[in-house]
Amino acid sequence: MSIYIDPAVASSLRGFEMPEKLGFGKVMAPVMFRAVCQDGCWSRGELLPYAPLALDPAAKVLHYAQSCFEGMKAYRVQGGGVGLFRPERNAARMVHSAERLCMPPVPESLFMDGVRTVSAYCANLVPANSGESLYLRPFLMGTQPDLSVSTSSTCEFYVIASPSEAYHPGNMRLWVERENARAALGGTGDSKVGGNYAASLLSVARLKERGYDQSLWLNPGNRRTVDELSGMNFFAVLDGELHTPALNGSILEGVTRDSLIELARDLGYRVREREIDIDELLGQVESGRCEEAFACGTAAIISPISVFGDGEREYRPAKAPGPVAERLRAALLDIQEGRAEDRFGWMQAVEAVGE
Amino acid sequence: MSIYIDPAVASSLRGFEMPEKLGFGKVMAPVMFRAVCQDGCWSRGELLPYAPLALDPAAKVLHYAQSCFEGMKAYRVQGGGVGLFRPERNAARMVHSAERLCMPPVPESLFMDGVRTVSAYCANLVPANSGESLYLRPFLMGTQPDLSVSTSSTCEFYVIASPSEAYHPGNMRLWVERENARAALGGTGDSKVGGNYAASLLSVARLKERGYDQSLWLNPGNRRTVDELSGMNFFAVLDGELHTPALNGSILEGVTRDSLIELARDLGYRVREREIDIDELLGQVESGRCEEAFACGTAAIISPISVFGDGEREYRPAKAPGPVAERLRAALLDIQEGRAEDRFGWMQAVEAVGE
Repeated sequence: MSIYIDPAVASSLRGFEMPEKLGFGKVMAPVMFRAVCQDGCWSRGELLPYAPLALDPAAKVLHYAQSCFEGMKAYRVQGGGVGLFRPERNAARMVHSAERLCMPPVPESLFMDGVRTVSAYCANLVPANSGESLYLRPFLMGTQPDLSVSTSSTCEFYVIASPSEAYHPGNMRLWVERENARAALGGTGDSKVGGNYAASLLSVARLKERGYDQSLWLNPGNRRTVDELSGMNFFAVLDGELHTPALNGSILEGVTRDSLIELARDLGYRVREREIDIDELLGQVESGRCEEAFACGTAAIISPISVFGDGEREYRPAKAPGPVAERLRAALLDIQEGRAEDRFGWMQAVEAVGE
Repeated sequence: MSIYIDPAVASSLRGFEMPEKLGFGKVMAPVMFRAVCQDGCWSRGELLPYAPLALDPAAKVLHYAQSCFEGMKAYRVQGGGVGLFRPERNAARMVHSAERLCMPPVPESLFMDGVRTVSAYCANLVPANSGESLYLRPFLMGTQPDLSVSTSSTCEFYVIASPSEAYHPGNMRLWVERENARAALGGTGDSKVGGNYAASLLSVARLKERGYDQSLWLNPGNRRTVDELSGMNFFAVLDGELHTPALNGSILEGVTRDSLIELARDLGYRVREREIDIDELLGQVESGRCEEAFACGTAAIISPISVFGDGEREYRPAKAPGPVAERLRAALLDIQEGRAEDRFGWMQAVEAVGE
């Protein structure tokens, strides 16, 4: 199905002025992609000027959080082109998230139309410095105006974008969250849905008062093994090997996590996916067996962990950033920005549209 | 602070035609109350014509489910007036929900302004037959356009309303949900937030295929004791006594639940709030010791449970509806609709505005 391009898109793009200071996810590109699903039938995709959405006050997304999203980036590739990184993984994960919330899955072709069209028309807005990117935000939500708690007959799919700086939170101070949970066992933890993030806000607000940056979430079933951070997966380096929590239904399967596992093995590291007991891990940090630990995600790629706070105690890995984190980060960014050969077939080129 | 009444409200109300068939939560009243909180400061409340909301596509509510709500009713009281039932309880619960999601609590006076103003201007839209009502839906959401996972600097509070039929789901067939969870221990189960409802949709969709109506959620910590239904609390009648799950952090504290406990005690029943083991309960249904069970909530007041489905087995209470449920339902509705004396001081009269 061909994509409708609103005639006003051209002037929206011409009129856009890139601010000096970008930040991350703060400046919105002046276009958006939209498709609507009514009773299971998807409309044609449309590229429109970025504009407020007209939502009925009784729309289900506003009351019952029937919404899911993805986070991905369009990169400025060496030589001038624009590239997407494994977008088919995001498309597949959004199918999983939609099904968890009883929404119609966005067909992969429509998802790809969305991210490719926005990236193509915004090619000039992909920042050029290494680490900068056009952050892409596909999202799907139930918009039927009806106050009954039931699945929405109408869903809307959007792709919006934000030209963004490199996201370097620096060395992170993690708080071992032993009280709150972001998602239940048998809940939505392995889906990228709004409710997981809403549930995480209070923990983060509290730990910031104590001087920490992020919560380290434990498994809601056993309250003993490491799951993830909000929006990032966790890795520890033990005796030179990489250890990361095995997928268990409450961990979001990160695209960066998956890519780092493959990349690390290719670089000769042994990688183990397993249950990581938090108390055992903290003991290994203390004894020096765990020399480095880091979080990974689309935004920052890799963020080293400098401190684990647990109650009154703090545990500091010997190296933050450590050599493994630095090597993996550089290797992945080199592929994403076209400085290294894409031996895994991860990149998809996007042809720019317009001037 | 005085409330701004938009001049277009009068014509919106005059132009509204009440449909023959109302349903529940489907027909929206033609006005809405709004107030905005920017960096902790609340605007004046406004009564506006009901209209689509203009939301930035990057608004936090659409991505991170930063939203909470209340459900309550304006009743047509014997003699013609309009009454609200314990609205201060809903105001207090919304404070709790907002704090759980790091949103500014809606001040009780503003909350009351909202529900009273909408009820007063819509007094003619409160249906007259017993059991019918004007369903009121206060809700609060984070609207800042910013893709970072953090609390919203801007929140909007609305009250919308829906003239609704009596909600009689009839005898309910419950499915004992042993796999999925609506909220985590240490999560948002005791707050009325969107994510709990989004997480419940898949369970309900699956059990409907098996011929059931609602999920009976077990405690996400022990997976063994009864928590609640989605949007309703649970009661069992055992040896003539009322038993309901004690509040434990993952159960929503229902206003109807609280009122029934007080009313039942006043009528001479013994009421026990305790952990209810699901296997023990099913055994008591089978043996006949548990003669009746019911769910309660604002919408239906009381819905008798005719079947508990658990895997391949079904358990049927002897009486559905049972005499205790019928007596309590009538007693509560008599207070709400002004046929019985309001000995508990639960009702608040609303003075109609307009013709």
